[in-house]
Amino acid sequence: MKVDGRWRRAIELADDGASVIVLDQARLPYDVAWMRLASLDDAARAIRDMHVRGAPLIGAVAAYGVAMALRAGVALDDATTRLAATRPTAVNLRWALDEMRAATADTGFAIAARICDDDVWRCEQIGKHGVDLIREVGRRPVNILTHCNAGWLATVDWGTALAPIYKAHEDGVALHVWVDETRPRNQGLLTAWELAAHGVPHTVIADNAGGFLMQQGKVDLCIVGTDRTTREGDVCNKIGTYLKALAAHANGVPFYVAVPSPSIDWHVSAEDIPIEERSGDEVRRIRGVSVVLDASAVANPAFDITPRGLVTALITERGVVAPGGLAALFPREAAR
Amino acid sequence: MKVDGRWRRAIELADDGASVIVLDQARLPYDVAWMRLASLDDAARAIRDMHVRGAPLIGAVAAYGVAMALRAGVALDDATTRLAATRPTAVNLRWALDEMRAATADTGFAIAARICDDDVWRCEQIGKHGVDLIREVGRRPVNILTHCNAGWLATVDWGTALAPIYKAHEDGVALHVWVDETRPRNQGLLTAWELAAHGVPHTVIADNAGGFLMQQGKVDLCIVGTDRTTREGDVCNKIGTYLKALAAHANGVPFYVAVPSPSIDWHVSAEDIPIEERSGDEVRRIRGVSVVLDASAVANPAFDITPRGLVTALITERGVVAPGGLAALFPREAAR
Repeated sequence: MKVDGRWRRAIELADDGASVIVLDQARLPYDVAWMRLASLDDAARAIRDMHVRGAPLIGAVAAYGVAMALRAGVALDDATTRLAATRPTAVNLRWALDEMRAATADTGFAIAARICDDDVWRCEQIGKHGVDLIREVGRRPVNILTHCNAGWLATVDWGTALAPIYKAHEDGVALHVWVDETRPRNQGLLTAWELAAHGVPHTVIADNAGGFLMQQGKVDLCIVGTDRTTREGDVCNKIGTYLKALAAHANGVPFYVAVPSPSIDWHVSAEDIPIEERSGDEVRRIRGVSVVLDASAVANPAFDITPRGLVTALITERGVVAPGGLAALFPREAAR
Repeated sequence: MKVDGRWRRAIELADDGASVIVLDQARLPYDVAWMRLASLDDAARAIRDMHVRGAPLIGAVAAYGVAMALRAGVALDDATTRLAATRPTAVNLRWALDEMRAATADTGFAIAARICDDDVWRCEQIGKHGVDLIREVGRRPVNILTHCNAGWLATVDWGTALAPIYKAHEDGVALHVWVDETRPRNQGLLTAWELAAHGVPHTVIADNAGGFLMQQGKVDLCIVGTDRTTREGDVCNKIGTYLKALAAHANGVPFYVAVPSPSIDWHVSAEDIPIEERSGDEVRRIRGVSVVLDASAVANPAFDITPRGLVTALITERGVVAPGGLAALFPREAAR
């Protein structure tokens, strides 16, 4: 994606070859600031405090975190334990740490770089497969609803849910994207920032509005990302995704989920996915301004589960499949 | 409701007998400030700019607006036309203007006062009928989810959706209320403020969270208000209500709507209810702080329709009925 006139990735190796540069997503979209992560500590803190977020990007940062730890003489197990504890829900984090198992002080950075390149490849493939789903709608423009941010910023490049949108836009398909604000952390505004940078027409809406828009026939399809998808195709994603899937199902609107294979957890059932409960301050305050008074309690579950029955299809790097078709598409991974 | 140590109504005749005092809901819950409405202009502006909101309260303010206009020598038709144009969706506004048709400069204030007293009576009856629905859950505490504000502040006293909650709390039923934040205008924080003032345990959540809480078995029932309900029981209410009704239906959670009879429109079908599109600034800014960048468009539909099939029952001043049972319960009104 183009930032400040240059093509950039969401995570890049720094010129010193020993640290990485990431966009500080806690400041976006209001400030575009790059931050350097130079140690295991930096990587763990960046993930925990959501300076980086998005399941694939968390995996990439964790991989570099291990590489930096190994080069600093930290034991592999200590590094992976530390990083695994930062956030519980996205399985890509655990996947990336598994991929780093064979790493040493000498090979860590190369393996992390490969993880990043593979992520870009997967997102491009998701884009290529997903663009047909957009094109076949045949309307001008095609109205797409998305929730949270599963774009360039959530990955290394391209994004998952947004990759088909970017591909379709490049191919000249007329598009309009309804962007859910995505309270409490407003990641929809990251999506809006990305889409604006690429010239993709879009409209930000309150999370409450999507069901009404579907009732009105103003949504042709939904595409979202995922933090963890089960073998059977149950989709864990940002809180509120489930509500949009219910509305899509009730209104005959296709509901697609972009799923790179590292987001698949082959060994968990939906009810066992740990749902992160984040700080109530995220609900209480918006950009530093208090909105909820102290006299009230707050709760802040960060993810929900969309049951497979509400999912039209999954868009993976190997093609588009029904929720039940994952194991057939990834037989080696499924058998592990 | 008790405000600053005194029992107050949301609208009261001022000591001069020629104007009314209302709480300025544009400043709540951060500032508790009463404002005086002394003319048709004041009343129309207060409704349009949402210094007063909530379908029953809008009706009450409009009634006094007509009374003040008549006393100032304004023609009845001019006053009703002016007030009818302030907000399109809540039918109580039109109902109250109809009730004021027989008013004169001499009788206007008395008729408006009667409309307010009747509203209090209806809300109390809704409370009495609805409390049984809460009590029969039999859990300690009973977990109730509500959306927007259909409380004391939305009516003259008691509220519609909150009346059964206040009654149950007074009766010693252990309760806990999940309060939807209700973006973009955050009317959930008015609900939280009311509940806190009455000592009712509650937790504010992002609008995205309710579906997850229902999946987790943490919601025993939902109660919401309505701005306009059709003869068949289709419910127009604050944007986002529909998403919670879908989730309730999918999870076997009873979904109740508190409907005072002036909120019933006997002559409209759901698809013909005008849905107010409010200023995008409500999405762009929160408490004066910009959240959505200017590079993005915004949309702000203020209401949606919950189809009768998702509604367990309606709580009216005459009792609890299935959505199809309204006409039998209000035969005279239905035949008008």
